[in-house]
Amino acid sequence: MLFHGLSAFPITPADPRGRVDIDALNSLVRRIDEAGAESVGLLGSTGSYMYLNREEKRRAIEAAVDCLGGRTPVIVGVGSLRTDQSIALAQDARDAGAQGLLLAPVSYTPLGDDEVFEHFAAVATATDLPLCVYNNPGTTHFSVSNTLLRRLAGVANIVAVKNPALPAADMVAAHRATQSAVPADFAIGYSGDWLVADAILSGGVAWYSVIAGLLPEPAVKLMRAAQAGDRAETQRISALFEPLWALFRELSSYRVVHAAANLLDLSRFDPPRPILPLSPADRQRVTAALDALSSV
Amino acid sequence: MLFHGLSAFPITPADPRGRVDIDALNSLVRRIDEAGAESVGLLGSTGSYMYLNREEKRRAIEAAVDCLGGRTPVIVGVGSLRTDQSIALAQDARDAGAQGLLLAPVSYTPLGDDEVFEHFAAVATATDLPLCVYNNPGTTHFSVSNTLLRRLAGVANIVAVKNPALPAADMVAAHRATQSAVPADFAIGYSGDWLVADAILSGGVAWYSVIAGLLPEPAVKLMRAAQAGDRAETQRISALFEPLWALFRELSSYRVVHAAANLLDLSRFDPPRPILPLSPADRQRVTAALDALSSV
Repeated sequence: MLFHGLSAFPITPADPRGRVDIDALNSLVRRIDEAGAESVGLLGSTGSYMYLNREEKRRAIEAAVDCLGGRTPVIVGVGSLRTDQSIALAQDARDAGAQGLLLAPVSYTPLGDDEVFEHFAAVATATDLPLCVYNNPGTTHFSVSNTLLRRLAGVANIVAVKNPALPAADMVAAHRATQSAVPADFAIGYSGDWLVADAILSGGVAWYSVIAGLLPEPAVKLMRAAQAGDRAETQRISALFEPLWALFRELSSYRVVHAAANLLDLSRFDPPRPILPLSPADRQRVTAALDALSSV
Repeated sequence: MLFHGLSAFPITPADPRGRVDIDALNSLVRRIDEAGAESVGLLGSTGSYMYLNREEKRRAIEAAVDCLGGRTPVIVGVGSLRTDQSIALAQDARDAGAQGLLLAPVSYTPLGDDEVFEHFAAVATATDLPLCVYNNPGTTHFSVSNTLLRRLAGVANIVAVKNPALPAADMVAAHRATQSAVPADFAIGYSGDWLVADAILSGGVAWYSVIAGLLPEPAVKLMRAAQAGDRAETQRISALFEPLWALFRELSSYRVVHAAANLLDLSRFDPPRPILPLSPADRQRVTAALDALSSV
């Protein structure tokens, strides 16, 4: 059941040279554990995996695994532009005690389905850890079709997918189409915080959540309401999140959640350049959106 | 006049672990020098800059500069996802004796204009080398608008742009629009081999060429015909290149030129995984396309 429930993706606080702030990371991870999320999604897009070097990623994984002491499992993003690098990162994650892997088809030269298939097969079979296909076309510029997902589901250790959630009107049909492509025990989960409540109500078994990495308590409440099929409570909590999610859509969740972490004194650092910190005016809007969440 | 004329972009032959084959690189660079191209474009997209680590890139630059002995200048691609990394790569290129820099706005988290501007300003002013803006939306997923280019042209050391060439019907207007955005001495050049002859006939001052990295002699002939405004000779040579360029469009120039380098015994290695080598059937098509070029 590793790829089920709420997976909380913390930022990876790091100084301007890319050195991870282990104390700050531990604080974030501890909050997730205490709030009762089902897993920590370390080094996802939110966790800057494409901006940190191998040594710093290893430090982050070791610290998080150590901090959690086995209570909450750790899923680690191991995407990179090279197959051999992703294999090395997967082995690092295993050696550090992680429980699962998350692999995105990162590209520079645009990739074809056969290339992505071979890449995933090589990384998935390099360790015994279960692996989730991280389908994130907005950053990788590669979309994992259901045809490709069916092939990937036949590879040893590939047991789950993290798909982008769609608007509510399209979600039920999209979820059924994905289900029909994979075995019954293949775990279909979703990301895209502002759309995920409907994805869970439509049958998704996991929420891969940016905001749960920073504010795990209200995120757990939202997830429990959606899992229970309680549409009224789901809508009530979603409405409280909406000001923050409007900023996610406008400014990107990556920038907003880094600014929010600073405002909440959970990180001292900005995102890595060339990403710029939010303007003072936008930071004020983030403060207002965070205030709205106090009544969850 | 560094960013004028024919800039030939060789592949960077490397073993499956990403170790550069210096002998093979030197052979490619020597061919470019002997054919009379105006510059070598080292570590461009064709030269796998996003797939090689800093140490290997430094080895490649040092070898190429040494091999050329100052006869043909070397322009080095220094793009990366982090500003501090691109600064370090630019300083490595300067220390190794390169004559110019090429910087692409590589992205994972999608970037805004202000972020790209600050990134370019930081890298361009980190050395005294002249820098060309490498606008390559097909791989970076960021398009440098003329509005942004105007701002960039005001930064010290930023003196040129490498834009994607457009179909002939749009090329004159596009070139004029770019010209109107930048100072008169700003060098506007083009990439996209199969479209570049018209871009030069339209006033472009540089051809940043994939095929010139492998077959510099016929590429020089095409460039000289276009520079002379000889439309008949330009069309005659372009027609001989067309079978190869049809394969560039279908399979990507990156894959095709790696296969062609193997077929011509100029490299022993395939591109880095996850990029797959061409199928035997496609390799036969490359052989046929290369044969067509013997009559240039």
